[in-house]
Amino acid sequence: MGEFELIRRYFASAPCAAPAPGVALGIGDDCALLQLSPGEQLAVSTDSLVAGVHFPDSCDPALLGQRALACAASDLAAMGAAPLGFTLALSLPEADEAWLQGFARGLNEMAGHCGLRLIGGDTTRGPLNINITVFGRVPAGQALLRSGARPGELLCVGGWLGEAAAALPCVLGQLPVDDEAARTLCASYWTPRPQLALGQALRGLAGAAQDISDGLLADATHIARASGVALEIDLEQLPLSPALLACLPLEEARQCALAGGDDYRLLFTLAPEHLQPLREQGFEIRPLGRVRAGQGVSLLDGEGRPLPLPAGGYEHFART
Amino acid sequence: MGEFELIRRYFASAPCAAPAPGVALGIGDDCALLQLSPGEQLAVSTDSLVAGVHFPDSCDPALLGQRALACAASDLAAMGAAPLGFTLALSLPEADEAWLQGFARGLNEMAGHCGLRLIGGDTTRGPLNINITVFGRVPAGQALLRSGARPGELLCVGGWLGEAAAALPCVLGQLPVDDEAARTLCASYWTPRPQLALGQALRGLAGAAQDISDGLLADATHIARASGVALEIDLEQLPLSPALLACLPLEEARQCALAGGDDYRLLFTLAPEHLQPLREQGFEIRPLGRVRAGQGVSLLDGEGRPLPLPAGGYEHFART
Repeated sequence: MGEFELIRRYFASAPCAAPAPGVALGIGDDCALLQLSPGEQLAVSTDSLVAGVHFPDSCDPALLGQRALACAASDLAAMGAAPLGFTLALSLPEADEAWLQGFARGLNEMAGHCGLRLIGGDTTRGPLNINITVFGRVPAGQALLRSGARPGELLCVGGWLGEAAAALPCVLGQLPVDDEAARTLCASYWTPRPQLALGQALRGLAGAAQDISDGLLADATHIARASGVALEIDLEQLPLSPALLACLPLEEARQCALAGGDDYRLLFTLAPEHLQPLREQGFEIRPLGRVRAGQGVSLLDGEGRPLPLPAGGYEHFART
Repeated sequence: MGEFELIRRYFASAPCAAPAPGVALGIGDDCALLQLSPGEQLAVSTDSLVAGVHFPDSCDPALLGQRALACAASDLAAMGAAPLGFTLALSLPEADEAWLQGFARGLNEMAGHCGLRLIGGDTTRGPLNINITVFGRVPAGQALLRSGARPGELLCVGGWLGEAAAALPCVLGQLPVDDEAARTLCASYWTPRPQLALGQALRGLAGAAQDISDGLLADATHIARASGVALEIDLEQLPLSPALLACLPLEEARQCALAGGDDYRLLFTLAPEHLQPLREQGFEIRPLGRVRAGQGVSLLDGEGRPLPLPAGGYEHFART
């Protein structure tokens, strides 16, 4: 099977490559063509996942396809953008049909879930590397930025934290997935659900927003720096799920929530009066701290006293 | 040096990441934001280059930076799009400062040459893999497609063919670069010049267009199929440069031009009356055949008789 046949069979004819509004031209020419409505801007983000670095070489290709697209789409959620499309640049050691079939199935499922169309790509031989660039639409001037946090706002997260990090020993095959709680954690790792609806609902309401990929503390630092504010996180308000607490002791669960990464939940700041109306729309929003004048991120105990910060976040090349 | 410091030092503060019209938000948030003018569409294309597949592991990083961006930008030229920006997803085995400095310098040079701004990216650890997604603007409905060729048009190419393919033995270190002609061929390989101005000049004039990356015969097949026409190529009209003919015997030079790939020249169809006005604007346009009713691509000798086709084009996984 050659490159063009591979593209045709697994990608160009997939449901996620069907025509869609906003996609004036899809797969098959030198470029795809996207069409915005008047007054819209295009949000763009690119993410690569590398075998042996971001996922085990031997993992289920369908789960990998889901996860790869979900991680990329989460950046659209973080900007409050409405999903439009994505490109896929896939480097593969060999054209393994079973692998491709599984990967395309997972990709299609997540594309359907997110409302994203495959508009183009590139397939090359090489060590397994999955690059996805996502495209979304946002009314001009309404994108959620990291720089808009203001003192007096609550610091909030959309849903639970720490499950994906706690799943890592299972994902890496170091621990068995032997009960319901462990399965829940693994699902959080493999099939994160980009919070696209929440991101769009936060337009005009949230001060600042981003998604948590490197860990709560590390990502909060980005908002604090970009906004020129201090962020306080209450240790006792960390949103720890029942599944996480069933698998890990409290201290380890907190460490996963603070520094684990891979959550792909939105972290945002919000004036207190906006909290209840958003919850009434069905969004699970959990306040875990507040914005103050100042700088940096601090962690407070139950009585508001600062705690030492654990080592935070994941950074490539951090030890070189 | 960590990932964020690496991005800041070599990419976010580079001249090619400076603010520009059309880039409402550049590097530093979850997404970049692009802004089109009313009536414009966004052209998008993604390309990956893999070490050991598309280039030798040990090659000059500055040349590699130039080439990676040029190859991607050539797809914008092929659509007649005006250059806007690009994202860079770089997987690197290690954060080697000398390599990064060279790569960023080459990337910047080509970005300046093309008028493309770096708007975002991703840096990860992994086997060397360079993914670039390019963005351009084109008035709605005016993009050059592969599907517009009509019988009676000339088949043309912008400039010489075959130089990059002929340079491969030098690029791979199998032959020395010991004279002016060999240097010219290597320059064609390492620093192709995307024909962005020519692409834009062809809007409204060319029937069909694409860039030649896999080889003239292979890429002509795409136009013939997409347009539902036959394309005839005259062997004696192949545009072979003096440098190519100084390095190779005629037969080998023709083989490079027909099937070599890596030319990144525009291949397009044009009604004969448009040829002279475009040449008067300074574009080097070389007719090498014609569009006829029918299907497929044929190669004709000096007396118009069909010749057997050599093995054509480069396709990943073609032997699996």
